[in-house]
Amino acid sequence: MGNIRLGIVGLGKIARDQHLGAIEAADGIELTAVASRNAQLEGVHCFRDIGEMLASGVELDAISLCTPPQGRFAQAKAALEAGKHLMLEKPPGTTLAEVFALEKLAREKGVSLYATWHSRAGAAVEQVRELLAKRTLRSVSVIWKEDVRYWHPGQAWIWEPGGLGVFDPGINALSIVTHIMPDSFHLTSSDLFFPENRAAPIAANLKFETAGGIPVTAEMDWRQTGPQTWDIRIDTEEGPVALTHGGGRVIIDGEKQPEGENHEYRRLYERFVELVQNSGIDTDFSPLVHVADAFMLGRRHAVEAFED
Amino acid sequence: MGNIRLGIVGLGKIARDQHLGAIEAADGIELTAVASRNAQLEGVHCFRDIGEMLASGVELDAISLCTPPQGRFAQAKAALEAGKHLMLEKPPGTTLAEVFALEKLAREKGVSLYATWHSRAGAAVEQVRELLAKRTLRSVSVIWKEDVRYWHPGQAWIWEPGGLGVFDPGINALSIVTHIMPDSFHLTSSDLFFPENRAAPIAANLKFETAGGIPVTAEMDWRQTGPQTWDIRIDTEEGPVALTHGGGRVIIDGEKQPEGENHEYRRLYERFVELVQNSGIDTDFSPLVHVADAFMLGRRHAVEAFED
Repeated sequence: MGNIRLGIVGLGKIARDQHLGAIEAADGIELTAVASRNAQLEGVHCFRDIGEMLASGVELDAISLCTPPQGRFAQAKAALEAGKHLMLEKPPGTTLAEVFALEKLAREKGVSLYATWHSRAGAAVEQVRELLAKRTLRSVSVIWKEDVRYWHPGQAWIWEPGGLGVFDPGINALSIVTHIMPDSFHLTSSDLFFPENRAAPIAANLKFETAGGIPVTAEMDWRQTGPQTWDIRIDTEEGPVALTHGGGRVIIDGEKQPEGENHEYRRLYERFVELVQNSGIDTDFSPLVHVADAFMLGRRHAVEAFED
Repeated sequence: MGNIRLGIVGLGKIARDQHLGAIEAADGIELTAVASRNAQLEGVHCFRDIGEMLASGVELDAISLCTPPQGRFAQAKAALEAGKHLMLEKPPGTTLAEVFALEKLAREKGVSLYATWHSRAGAAVEQVRELLAKRTLRSVSVIWKEDVRYWHPGQAWIWEPGGLGVFDPGINALSIVTHIMPDSFHLTSSDLFFPENRAAPIAANLKFETAGGIPVTAEMDWRQTGPQTWDIRIDTEEGPVALTHGGGRVIIDGEKQPEGENHEYRRLYERFVELVQNSGIDTDFSPLVHVADAFMLGRRHAVEAFED
């Protein structure tokens, strides 16, 4: 099989910061076309939207969506109906019902669907997952705090319904925790902090429990200035485990472990290549389930207005 | 197989208005015990909570939970872990993650789990489901309006997180629509109206679409006084279909159809008996998925305070 000929849709911050370089670095896949309303890229076919791209006659095997989640369903559906393998940036959509529908459609069409969670590809995540499978957990505590002005400058969509607010980064933490924990868990309380002038939360405090009663807490906050905190602290009977730097580093029983190289998005594309070779489907929507639960069970608190 | 020996948990409004009579009327099942913090029932074993009931030595095959959704997970888990077949009033829980966990647990234990949607057992619902399978849909419009003071007097839990507010009745409409429509659908916009002094919405306007683009709208409002409106209007190429009275009656192409007898809860218990006989599982959580989506994608509007 030759290189997978890929079209990407959306040329915003995440595409430029992560996807373009990762596609370049990954084996088995090459960028053939892009669709963007406002931007162009040298050396590939450029279109204004996915409809133009699919109708153009340019041969494509797969599509990667790097657009905001609002409006992504129509793009995803167009790609799948055209028989293209499909990779989705996180979050995979604005509703659970739409992502369930996409999975069903991908199965009907016999093409790959990959709902990615880039933080799961963090350098230290697999090591922690393997470790926890052998340990007895007592508690898990997520601290996920960053400066929204630094990480999401001018991203108006993120404050709109479907943009998820602080859950846009916070879902990364949930994607790691759902991956590394041996047991599933469910929300028992949720406090959401909405700026008076915004439709999405700027902070959230969540409490979860496994069926066996192990507590999992998460504090998410976009009002932190200075360096971000992307930490998951796991207390086990055998000793503490701290997964820091968004899954990039780990301290086990007080000892810093050797740092692996951080190639989250390259790993995503390598995994996508594997999936496409087998028309495989990799869709774990559990992080989005927890976010939907956090909104449904959430108690809302109004906080100070936020201006970019 | 003798009668299923049933324990019910919760002796509030819904248990007294619906469950007790339905259990009496249904074949194959009999009420053996009840658990209630405040109430007792003549002629059956009475306990203060499910823990006491399960530990009592009274022989039970199955449990039916009629408690509010908050706190139901622990009760459901206790029942399943004791090897009891389990029936859940709607909504089945306060989070999707917990109901998914219950389903997994029921499968592990080899017992029945029935997540009921009583409105699906409305007298005219199956007729409409069969009709729509043969017709071409153009649009679906739900109007679900009632007087909260009449239907939910003093039910404080319904205004708390997890109580769902107007979605407590509204999910009945969604349970019918998800059942009668040949295609699934997903939310595209959601407006939620929260009284200033309440943690749950008093009204909601929702727009959904099928993958094929058929619009489904829902207006839910608890501020209606006088008679309730529980109508689903379906426009088809072959003519209009109006399912009224919460699924109890139907008008097809302008003609009122003969009224069937309304025995929603008796049908639920008859279905539960069937399931228990085969250790079957009947859990369609799609109505709760749509409600979670409505909160996640919801734009919130503050409205006048509500006092009981």
